Amino acid sequence: MSGRLVVIGTGPGKPAQTTPEARAAIAAASDFFGYGPYLDRLELNDGQTRHASDNREELARAKAALTMAAQGRHVAVVSGGDAGVFAMAAAVCEAIEHGPEDWRALDLEIVPGLTAMLAVAARVGAPLGHDFCAISLSDNLKPWELIETRLAAVAGAGFVIALYNPISRARPWQLGRAFELLSGILPASTPVVFGRAAGRPDERMAIVPLNEARGEMADMATCVIIGSPETRLIERPGKSPLVYAPRSATGAAR
Amino acid sequence: MSGRLVVIGTGPGKPAQTTPEARAAIAAASDFFGYGPYLDRLELNDGQTRHASDNREELARAKAALTMAAQGRHVAVVSGGDAGVFAMAAAVCEAIEHGPEDWRALDLEIVPGLTAMLAVAARVGAPLGHDFCAISLSDNLKPWELIETRLAAVAGAGFVIALYNPISRARPWQLGRAFELLSGILPASTPVVFGRAAGRPDERMAIVPLNEARGEMADMATCVIIGSPETRLIERPGKSPLVYAPRSATGAAR
Repeated sequence: MSGRLVVIGTGPGKPAQTTPEARAAIAAASDFFGYGPYLDRLELNDGQTRHASDNREELARAKAALTMAAQGRHVAVVSGGDAGVFAMAAAVCEAIEHGPEDWRALDLEIVPGLTAMLAVAARVGAPLGHDFCAISLSDNLKPWELIETRLAAVAGAGFVIALYNPISRARPWQLGRAFELLSGILPASTPVVFGRAAGRPDERMAIVPLNEARGEMADMATCVIIGSPETRLIERPGKSPLVYAPRSATGAAR
Repeated sequence: MSGRLVVIGTGPGKPAQTTPEARAAIAAASDFFGYGPYLDRLELNDGQTRHASDNREELARAKAALTMAAQGRHVAVVSGGDAGVFAMAAAVCEAIEHGPEDWRALDLEIVPGLTAMLAVAARVGAPLGHDFCAISLSDNLKPWELIETRLAAVAGAGFVIALYNPISRARPWQLGRAFELLSGILPASTPVVFGRAAGRPDERMAIVPLNEARGEMADMATCVIIGSPETRLIERPGKSPLVYAPRSATGAAR
């Protein structure tokens, strides 16, 4: 079997933040699987074929890509951000584990990319400068109770929290509920960053204290970063403030 | 004041993983501050000046860079990986907060980069495919007890854990102690990834079950990823196994 599968993270959407490695992997592949809007960002040539699918078809998409790779094609599965963070690399691994034996023999490469929280953090200072975690707020594939347990555990232990998939049409109330829960644990003044489309023309960054944070401030393209009790905000004359997590931590603010 | 400061993450060390944005920021700056080995990776021209310093001089280095930027120079502070993850962006923000007022007026830009855990994860599958956290194991700037509290909180709540700064000559026992603590919470078979120098010529990846993980398996260039109870390992004929966190989570394995 000479087929191969490469899972590519293209970064947050600013072309200069796509690595040369990802760019080369895109140039080399023949068939592209991914969510339509991510595929639309690629500049493909006539010999390269798009197989776009809906956002929520991850496992089916992974299987289709593996099937085509097993037929000898050079297949790329494309994610925005990093392929390994709440994205297609896990779906491909899951499909391999439960799929036909020969998928395990396929040549598989994963090309990492800049994930959204890093791009957002860079736009506002260094909110991920100390211990932090990343949580998907989607309860499509895990119970909401587990998400609440995790939020409480990390907020109580002083982690900065980056929320992926904060809101969608089908999940309108979860982010508001998360802020409510966190307000019972963290100071009202804890900085919350709403980082939308970092580095893209439609970028929008907002920083509000936790007691003013509302679910409606985010959309599907937003990564939300919630500070720890030790997170600092620096006002600057004529510039947007800086938010950062100090390199030292006492845990005393808990 | 016409000076400017740019804090640049150059990625894990594989040249093709440095973003074009970071490359352009390097080309544009006149003076470079950073840990010697990171500066050594840059290809500077005759008009560009290196100001190398030791690994543990972060705040002093940030102040020196800000002082020079305030004098009108175009200064770059360089980190390996991402500048915002256990790196120089937080030190620069800290220096600005506590420094002279005019540092707040400086033109400051932070250029994100691929952080080590993403590059390591891509080499072994998708171990960060679901909720995860990043913890610095260094107790230079926080009490060891706080690190133990955090490890227990996230392991108990089912997060995958990426450990930065796992070991050094001055901190020889902490990683072994962390494995011991986690062994009381997580299954003995939990996959542990030792990802050293991902993408560089001296790369070394190892995957062992938690009950076989030892501190000596890591060095300063290693990022350690410890699975959750739901993390899966896929054996492959003639290839290294894949490790991944399933996209769905029940929390039941806790």
